[in-house]
Amino acid sequence: MTPFKPRHDDFEATVRDSFSRGAILHVLETEMSRCEPGFIELRQPITPVTLQHHGYVHGGVVSTLMDIVGGHAAQTLIGAGDSVLTVEFKINMLAPGEGDHLRAEGHVIRPGKNITVCRMDLYASKDGEETLICIGQGTYMRMAGVSDAKMFAERAGGK
Amino acid sequence: MTPFKPRHDDFEATVRDSFSRGAILHVLETEMSRCEPGFIELRQPITPVTLQHHGYVHGGVVSTLMDIVGGHAAQTLIGAGDSVLTVEFKINMLAPGEGDHLRAEGHVIRPGKNITVCRMDLYASKDGEETLICIGQGTYMRMAGVSDAKMFAERAGGK
Amino acid sequence: MTPFKPRHDDFEATVRDSFSRGAILHVLETEMSRCEPGFIELRQPITPVTLQHHGYVHGGVVSTLMDIVGGHAAQTLIGAGDSVLTVEFKINMLAPGEGDHLRAEGHVIRPGKNITVCRMDLYASKDGEETLICIGQGTYMRMAGVSDAKMFAERAGGK
Amino acid sequence: MTPFKPRHDDFEATVRDSFSRGAILHVLETEMSRCEPGFIELRQPITPVTLQHHGYVHGGVVSTLMDIVGGHAAQTLIGAGDSVLTVEFKINMLAPGEGDHLRAEGHVIRPGKNITVCRMDLYASKDGEETLICIGQGTYMRMAGVSDAKMFAERAGGK
Repeated sequence: MTPFKPRHDDFEATVRDSFSRGAILHVLETEMSRCEPGFIELRQPITPVTLQHHGYVHGGVVSTLMDIVGGHAAQTLIGAGDSVLTVEFKINMLAPGEGDHLRAEGHVIRPGKNITVCRMDLYASKDGEETLICIGQGTYMRMAGVSDAKMFAERAGGK
Repeated sequence: MTPFKPRHDDFEATVRDSFSRGAILHVLETEMSRCEPGFIELRQPITPVTLQHHGYVHGGVVSTLMDIVGGHAAQTLIGAGDSVLTVEFKINMLAPGEGDHLRAEGHVIRPGKNITVCRMDLYASKDGEETLICIGQGTYMRMAGVSDAKMFAERAGGK
Repeated sequence: MTPFKPRHDDFEATVRDSFSRGAILHVLETEMSRCEPGFIELRQPITPVTLQHHGYVHGGVVSTLMDIVGGHAAQTLIGAGDSVLTVEFKINMLAPGEGDHLRAEGHVIRPGKNITVCRMDLYASKDGEETLICIGQGTYMRMAGVSDAKMFAERAGGK
Repeated sequence: MTPFKPRHDDFEATVRDSFSRGAILHVLETEMSRCEPGFIELRQPITPVTLQHHGYVHGGVVSTLMDIVGGHAAQTLIGAGDSVLTVEFKINMLAPGEGDHLRAEGHVIRPGKNITVCRMDLYASKDGEETLICIGQGTYMRMAGVSDAKMFAERAGGK
């Protein structure tokens, strides 16, 4: 387990609820395989829609996974009524992504009252062997008193 | 026009050919509206599939556009038989994306023999008014003698 | 002039006061040549202490200038009783720095209540001709109610 | 020990020779405490010249250490006749630096023929307790056939 202590008991339900609202993730078939205080793991199959023009995993899919795995890791350590915004992130592409599926890890390095900093790693798995294909570092901001569920309801209702 | 001189006359056809091979862009309905030496402009509608759980444009869509607009800007200045890989990029999210469509700009800042550095900007347009929602900076590497068309043919043939 | 409006009339005096407190800048002989709302320009001579082992300007000098020019640009747009902290920044080295002096520009791209995002450029000047040697992008946070002068006085008094 | 294998037996002497040529490091009193394949550790005292206007370690000192610890880590894995250039790096400031001394770690994450990617960590030590104050990620390029010693000799002779 991680050394971090969540601020409320239902952190996992809150994080999984936010995760489930992202429409693009349904296109990509991404699953949240682990959700712990300060740590998230995502998995997704490498399907035709995820490939770029060279036949490798598209950089946009890579960056999408890196961003959300960092953001949800940050989200595991905030209050029940808060949400998380991406301030910025940076990623290095290390190797082309190919194989059966992808596995992303998001680690909180420094949880803050308002600013949380994470490191992210992305692996491609081929025939049971993993290759590290991307590493990143990102900054996430807590939006106090703006839960995802509340914002979603307001915007859905306003349309 | 930009101050840059392309290395071959068919640079636009080469760039547009690469752009057309990205399957994820068909999902997003992205179009390349301008292709000049050292400069690319992309446009895409804000559709339901591009939204995240708050109802704004998904960070993954933002990062996808930032990466490809920078990569294709770099590609406008390389040789006919070469291709471009993303080494790394960094983006700052400035405002939530909402409105009718997105417009991305990729600018080559320093073209190099092997390493090209770009700056990227992303605007969201609502009722005819644009808001800058993301800025980025990225590093792209030339793959000498590995054209996109050639690599695509080889991989397609090998399956 | 820039399009930004400062929050108080003495912004320039506040920024120059903070700038003057950095001991490392006395070693480097850095000067603040322009201070406008949302914009800072720094200049410094290329002296032996600024060189690395290849005889070019040291990367550490480059990154120091990039960070402070961005931070002070952000500082031009905050309140009189506030100060600025660097959250993060990213820089690309474009060319080796050589010549007579360096000139750095810091531009606020998005001023925020708490988070300000800047772009930074660094030029080396040789025989009157400038070369862009580094570009960067950084995130700065406002520390409400913690002025530099006050913090300086408290810490100096506490020792 | 690290899992990496150096390309030549004298890698440590080569790295330490390059390190010793940086004039700014003499001002900062930085020492290379460990030099292993793919790993570098630097240490330096927190002295008055390293402080900024708040009385904490200057961001420029922090970024200088981050850059060189990453660059020298990359250098441990290249050929005897090669040298290393910083392509870019990104750092997050996690906490103000205060105490007795600083300790920086540079880790190669992916060594490449031409491009090496590193992660860097910086700790401040106070009364025997370490605090992580900065994390970073950087990209370094091999300059084939341009050793530091050779370039230094040529430039020194040309003046």
